Amino acid sequence: MKKFFNLYNLSSAQILSLGYSTVILLGALLLTLPIATTNGQGMNFLDAVFTATSATAVTGLIVENTASFFTTFGQVVIMCLIQIGGLGIMSMSTLFVFLVGKRVTLKHRLMIQDDLDQFELSGILQLVKYVIAVTFTIEGTGALLLFTRFIQDMPLGKAIYFAIFHSVSAFNNAGFDIFGNSLENFTGDITVNLTITSLIILGGIGFAVIAEIYDGKKFKNFSLQTKLVLSVTAILIVVGMIGAFILEHSNPATLGKLPLGDKLLASYFLSVTPRTAGFNTVPTGALRSSTIFFVIILMFIGASPGSTGGGIKTTTFGALLAVLYSRVTGKDDIEVYKRRLDKEVIFDALSICLIALTIVALVTTILTITEKAPFLDLLFETVSAFGTVGLSTGVTGNLSVIGRVLIILTMFAGRVGPLTLAVAVAEKRHKANIRYPEEKILVG
Amino acid sequence: MKKFFNLYNLSSAQILSLGYSTVILLGALLLTLPIATTNGQGMNFLDAVFTATSATAVTGLIVENTASFFTTFGQVVIMCLIQIGGLGIMSMSTLFVFLVGKRVTLKHRLMIQDDLDQFELSGILQLVKYVIAVTFTIEGTGALLLFTRFIQDMPLGKAIYFAIFHSVSAFNNAGFDIFGNSLENFTGDITVNLTITSLIILGGIGFAVIAEIYDGKKFKNFSLQTKLVLSVTAILIVVGMIGAFILEHSNPATLGKLPLGDKLLASYFLSVTPRTAGFNTVPTGALRSSTIFFVIILMFIGASPGSTGGGIKTTTFGALLAVLYSRVTGKDDIEVYKRRLDKEVIFDALSICLIALTIVALVTTILTITEKAPFLDLLFETVSAFGTVGLSTGVTGNLSVIGRVLIILTMFAGRVGPLTLAVAVAEKRHKANIRYPEEKILVG
Ligand SMILES: [K+]
Ligand SMILES: [K+]
Repeated sequence: MKKFFNLYNLSSAQILSLGYSTVILLGALLLTLPIATTNGQGMNFLDAVFTATSATAVTGLIVENTASFFTTFGQVVIMCLIQIGGLGIMSMSTLFVFLVGKRVTLKHRLMIQDDLDQFELSGILQLVKYVIAVTFTIEGTGALLLFTRFIQDMPLGKAIYFAIFHSVSAFNNAGFDIFGNSLENFTGDITVNLTITSLIILGGIGFAVIAEIYDGKKFKNFSLQTKLVLSVTAILIVVGMIGAFILEHSNPATLGKLPLGDKLLASYFLSVTPRTAGFNTVPTGALRSSTIFFVIILMFIGASPGSTGGGIKTTTFGALLAVLYSRVTGKDDIEVYKRRLDKEVIFDALSICLIALTIVALVTTILTITEKAPFLDLLFETVSAFGTVGLSTGVTGNLSVIGRVLIILTMFAGRVGPLTLAVAVAEKRHKANIRYPEEKILVG
Repeated sequence: MKKFFNLYNLSSAQILSLGYSTVILLGALLLTLPIATTNGQGMNFLDAVFTATSATAVTGLIVENTASFFTTFGQVVIMCLIQIGGLGIMSMSTLFVFLVGKRVTLKHRLMIQDDLDQFELSGILQLVKYVIAVTFTIEGTGALLLFTRFIQDMPLGKAIYFAIFHSVSAFNNAGFDIFGNSLENFTGDITVNLTITSLIILGGIGFAVIAEIYDGKKFKNFSLQTKLVLSVTAILIVVGMIGAFILEHSNPATLGKLPLGDKLLASYFLSVTPRTAGFNTVPTGALRSSTIFFVIILMFIGASPGSTGGGIKTTTFGALLAVLYSRVTGKDDIEVYKRRLDKEVIFDALSICLIALTIVALVTTILTITEKAPFLDLLFETVSAFGTVGLSTGVTGNLSVIGRVLIILTMFAGRVGPLTLAVAVAEKRHKANIRYPEEKILVG
């Protein structure tokens, strides 16, 4: 096992980065081929790297319209990158979730090669097989449901192709579409809305949670991880839907002209997509400033660990809220669902949040210098890239070269994971034997 | 002692709020008097409450120009409100800092009436006397230095009045000015810049730190609190100055046309004022978007506990950074200057930060609905109000009634303190006797 992860003495974080980079580069090269684009000239290299990164990191930001710029070959390359990226993230992160039961904190993740010795290689292969089977089952079901709708407007072959593409894109939370205007043709369509949102939610709660639900346990018997994921996800969707409805219901450019039922459906979709799919049924650029800001917060929180989604994760957010609740109610322990959270978990959650905030602040600051767009649009773009969401108010295509490179790096950082990245950069640490005396300080 | 704080069975948080509200209301009534304003009609009540809150909370946001709208009577009322508000905050918060040595965490602060039994009333009066003596000494020195400059342009009486007003306003981090354009006439003036920034910094590091420095100890013998305050403050000022210089040096509307020396001086001022004075020597509204965002972050962090400044505080920020550093370097303890930080302190720091972020996000969202100004300006205004900074890109005077009321509440919340407020609202808690089993979750 050690040998498997220890190729050429690389850490697993380095291997992860290297693996992703290789897939991205190969994908980018394929997209530069003349047969990949409808103009017969292939994509330029920078934009091809941008697109391949966006697909492999299942982000969904695009500099060229996927529907019109790429040939079917180019689109299939993108779909394959999405599937590889999604499966990779699902498998790797599911592994971490299962390792949690074995007392693995983030600071041990980088030494994962040692911890993995506890597993048999066969066990890991078994897990990956499971993940693939579940993925294909769900994607297949989703494609079938979408097909029943698409066949009404399209010839058979096209309907099958569109159904598969959008099911894969939705379950992997990629957000790529080949309609050319995301799902804006289906704002009030029940089948498309419910299928896509279900795929997004299933993809976003992660394999471990799906497995526990599939086992048919009752809620109270779920692991704390699953309880937290489900409750935070549910809260975010409900709060998001109410918020979106209140803020947008009178905006004529989005929900204003829709009948009430469609208003609710579109609010629901707007609430689900920041977790972190990136599809849209109403034009993102037409949302009000307040809604844009609200969606930024939802995107920042993102999806759940062990899933294809990004962001700081629902459990991180839940852990931070648990601290706040415990302090305000004067409890000594940080308690969630009658379980104590270890301080190490809290410190990890806090660190992830701080790193995420730092990256977002830094990238946004640089973009406000290099780009001409308003601050809010650039903040939206940055959080969307970092959270691998893929929504955009419309600035992606107008980004300068520096802006494109920066967003590529942000998508990559958002995917490979804030803490993994930070720890990977940091030097090998030595466990201190000295323990310093404690001293109080006053905060706030 | 118990009786002193336990009037009519109110908690100390309630007494604090009540005391502030009373001072604000009295001040507002005085400002509505005809003799308070140059137009002889007095200020309208809402704006008077706004101004009185801004002065008492030492924020400095203004809906009318202090120099031209108010008579000397009105200006003196404002100066007195600043002094009362500043002294109140200094005394109360210094008390808390000294209580830290007695193992008082935030969750005990609300029960402060019990803890205070450990002190003699005479000891507390002694402390308040000390605070007043130090305040008047520093303000007197500052006024003297400012006088040497102002006397060059003004008659004697006016120079004395202006020197005292701006010294009081600077040391209490109030940011009110009676020039009409803050300190924009003194962009390159060494005396005014260094005097004002020194007053701001001294006012912002808090009485306890000033006392330790005055004792003439060496840095390594300082308390952890003082070490943290001094090092974080120094880092913020240096980073802030470099950042401001890089972002603004070529902006013709701010630093662009100044000689290099003045550029550096103005960058230094721009770096000090978000901690949390609110004076400006270059027009805030003319800053670039990137600089505005940068200043927002500095304002959010703010000043130090036991001071007249606001924000989440330098120690809070330092504690959060310490967690990040310890996690990334793989240490088990959260260590700062060879001392361990208790997890309770970290949880408090995190809670304060979360509450602050929540309030800022909520207020900004509402303002983007009720006001017409761009998002970045409204975010700036909100953080400025919450951090009791008082800088504005120019939207304060154009706020709607809802906007004014919201900013008043935000200034109040920012002053009385995020956690104190939250805890005050929360019900009396009962210490749980059950301790739940621990369970791991995966974050990020
Ligand atoms: K996405
Ligand atoms: K101020």
